[in-house]
Amino acid sequence: MTNETKHSLMLEVGQRARKAARALARAQSSAKNQALMTLARKIRQQHAAVAAANALDLEKAREHNYPESFIDRLTVSSKVLETMAAGCEQIAQLPDPVGEISDMHVQPSGIRVGRMRVPLGVLGIIYESRPNVTVDAAALAVKSGNAAILRGGSEAFETNRILGQMVREALSESGLPKDAVQTAPVADRDFVGEMIRARGLIDVIIPRGGKSLIARLKNESLIEMIHHLDGICHTYVDADADLDMAVSVVDNAKTQRYSPCNATETLLVHEAVLESFLPRIGTVFQEKGVEMRCDAKSLAVLDAAGIAAVEAAQQDWDTEYNAPVISIASVESLDAAIDFIAEHGSNHTDAIITNDLTAAERFLREVDSGSVMVNCSTRLADGFEYGLGAEIGISTGKLHARGPVGLEGLTSLKYIVLGHGEGRR
Amino acid sequence: MTNETKHSLMLEVGQRARKAARALARAQSSAKNQALMTLARKIRQQHAAVAAANALDLEKAREHNYPESFIDRLTVSSKVLETMAAGCEQIAQLPDPVGEISDMHVQPSGIRVGRMRVPLGVLGIIYESRPNVTVDAAALAVKSGNAAILRGGSEAFETNRILGQMVREALSESGLPKDAVQTAPVADRDFVGEMIRARGLIDVIIPRGGKSLIARLKNESLIEMIHHLDGICHTYVDADADLDMAVSVVDNAKTQRYSPCNATETLLVHEAVLESFLPRIGTVFQEKGVEMRCDAKSLAVLDAAGIAAVEAAQQDWDTEYNAPVISIASVESLDAAIDFIAEHGSNHTDAIITNDLTAAERFLREVDSGSVMVNCSTRLADGFEYGLGAEIGISTGKLHARGPVGLEGLTSLKYIVLGHGEGRR
Repeated sequence: MTNETKHSLMLEVGQRARKAARALARAQSSAKNQALMTLARKIRQQHAAVAAANALDLEKAREHNYPESFIDRLTVSSKVLETMAAGCEQIAQLPDPVGEISDMHVQPSGIRVGRMRVPLGVLGIIYESRPNVTVDAAALAVKSGNAAILRGGSEAFETNRILGQMVREALSESGLPKDAVQTAPVADRDFVGEMIRARGLIDVIIPRGGKSLIARLKNESLIEMIHHLDGICHTYVDADADLDMAVSVVDNAKTQRYSPCNATETLLVHEAVLESFLPRIGTVFQEKGVEMRCDAKSLAVLDAAGIAAVEAAQQDWDTEYNAPVISIASVESLDAAIDFIAEHGSNHTDAIITNDLTAAERFLREVDSGSVMVNCSTRLADGFEYGLGAEIGISTGKLHARGPVGLEGLTSLKYIVLGHGEGRR
Repeated sequence: MTNETKHSLMLEVGQRARKAARALARAQSSAKNQALMTLARKIRQQHAAVAAANALDLEKAREHNYPESFIDRLTVSSKVLETMAAGCEQIAQLPDPVGEISDMHVQPSGIRVGRMRVPLGVLGIIYESRPNVTVDAAALAVKSGNAAILRGGSEAFETNRILGQMVREALSESGLPKDAVQTAPVADRDFVGEMIRARGLIDVIIPRGGKSLIARLKNESLIEMIHHLDGICHTYVDADADLDMAVSVVDNAKTQRYSPCNATETLLVHEAVLESFLPRIGTVFQEKGVEMRCDAKSLAVLDAAGIAAVEAAQQDWDTEYNAPVISIASVESLDAAIDFIAEHGSNHTDAIITNDLTAAERFLREVDSGSVMVNCSTRLADGFEYGLGAEIGISTGKLHARGPVGLEGLTSLKYIVLGHGEGRR
């Protein structure tokens, strides 16, 4: 396929999306919810067709000898299908953010000024070979009144195509434009390049995937992105921490699951509690097979307690392990902890364990991350745990949306002004 | 100066800004307000020094034979100085948005989740040779807790330098880091290129200037921007409009001033009132010397009324005149008006004149612009008219901030989470 063909395909898809976006922006909540409920029903009813399409993708993936973890993510089991369907129903139950009016006030000129929440327009969602994202992202887009162009990993092309088809049927049957959700028309990887240059057709690019993909898109995209780069999360155990709580929270933050972006990668410990706290959590980590990479003072304390640990290399402080490995540094003060996070953190999620109110307040205010926590696990940084009801991803950007992004993050506020003939003086 | 020198200058400036931003983010309102009041006092006291620096810039500008309008904008008269000083005092009086906590609620896990308003970090503000922007932008940055790197037009280099120096003194004297506001260290235009690539040092680029500058920055910037591209504003006179009001509002929207971005460039008139309304506003425009560029139906009505007008060319519907020229098109319905604006508008400001509640509600909801108005002049799209108390600019983007951007637009919301030892299950 030539570059020109891909470009004109993008134009067609984009123009259809643009038009559908306008219809979806003014759609009633009831129609959007009906589409989501219909989609849930279809997913459950048409499981055989999805399985057949998925089998084609899986066969190719096996031919290419993709690793088992990849095959796992690509597989749409009946359990995965049920989770997709239930997700649609759950999103249908959420309040519709679109059209909400706030801050209405009268100005001296006589005009009334307020703000109305409106969809962003057309979302370009780029993700790996996880077919469940196709349904999740479609449902979030529809509910928030946005059109979406979905470009999943090419290895899931057949599965995504049939899931996309079901979304489009559900939209049509609910009186909504089917072009509000389109999957990439070609498996070709270059279509991503077309999407990130489709200014005027796509309003925001939302990538979900590995760091290298996102870093590349960030460099090349001509369109604004809601994205998540690194998840180098810290938990700081303060001098005034409840040490039982600290052990339990740090254990959860690191070991409840190793792969998520909100798992703690670096433990900071105030020197005052280094000896009383570190051997306790070190024992837990040792039992669970978590490798500890330490600064000199931490290492000495663990050594003295007979707990195996290694010296951290400089790059460890800037590494997202997503694995049973943790960096451990001692700090001499709250200020040193905040400085450390400013230097090595990734604006994702950072927590303090303390009973000192002033320390908690300073940490909350001064740590510049999407989520800043006191006395709980960084693993709780999540749209569902925050009550958003759904999550398209977590943003480490500082504009628009920070932290977990739900329906509200897929909308913005425009000004509305009601007058009686007023003009500028 | 070599590219490497410029690059390392940017690094130095950026790292100082980054550090100062952290201090400013945690600064108390009283210190920030004191800095602004001190700055106002300095501006009034040191008018002679500013005038001397401004004279150097003006002399060069005259040598280069810049047009009189350019010289006007570059000139810092005592009136301009007083406006700057009063602006600082006004911004000092505004509520501090930083640290505000909202949406605090308890989740089933036991954690309390809320949001805290925080500064964006380091603003990179790029503008033309209007020295008043140096003080305005510095004052807005300081109040919103952001550091700023200010790069004004090179023709105003000396004036900006002395104004920047006064800002830095005012910060120092109020116990705040003077590096929170830095002006570009060199007049070289390439410094702009360094700024828009300084990812990790600058959090947002805010350009203020001509369309060509902004279009270029939009293509080249590696950093997110709050910006305003086109101001192609529409006023639509509906079938149910109060025609007296329509004449008065459209007159104001077009002629109160021609150059601002929120002046109406296109008048849409429902066919039902074309004959009753168009000759009335046409007479006003003719008297004021406003050229009318019309579609066939509008032209026929004006012709019949003996009012001089010309046929519009296709590109007129997409043109921001900023001049005594208006495009006029007839539309057969509200839908056609909304479609027209979707096709030719610039997401800036659009207004409907109507007494029909349904038409007003549909227009408000369906027109996708930063400001959408009913029965008033598009010229009212302004931070001061909206009660923001100040304005760094108007955004035509759809993410983060839409319409006039005040202090709130220079901040974002992070999540704060308060727990009691909770972990993820």
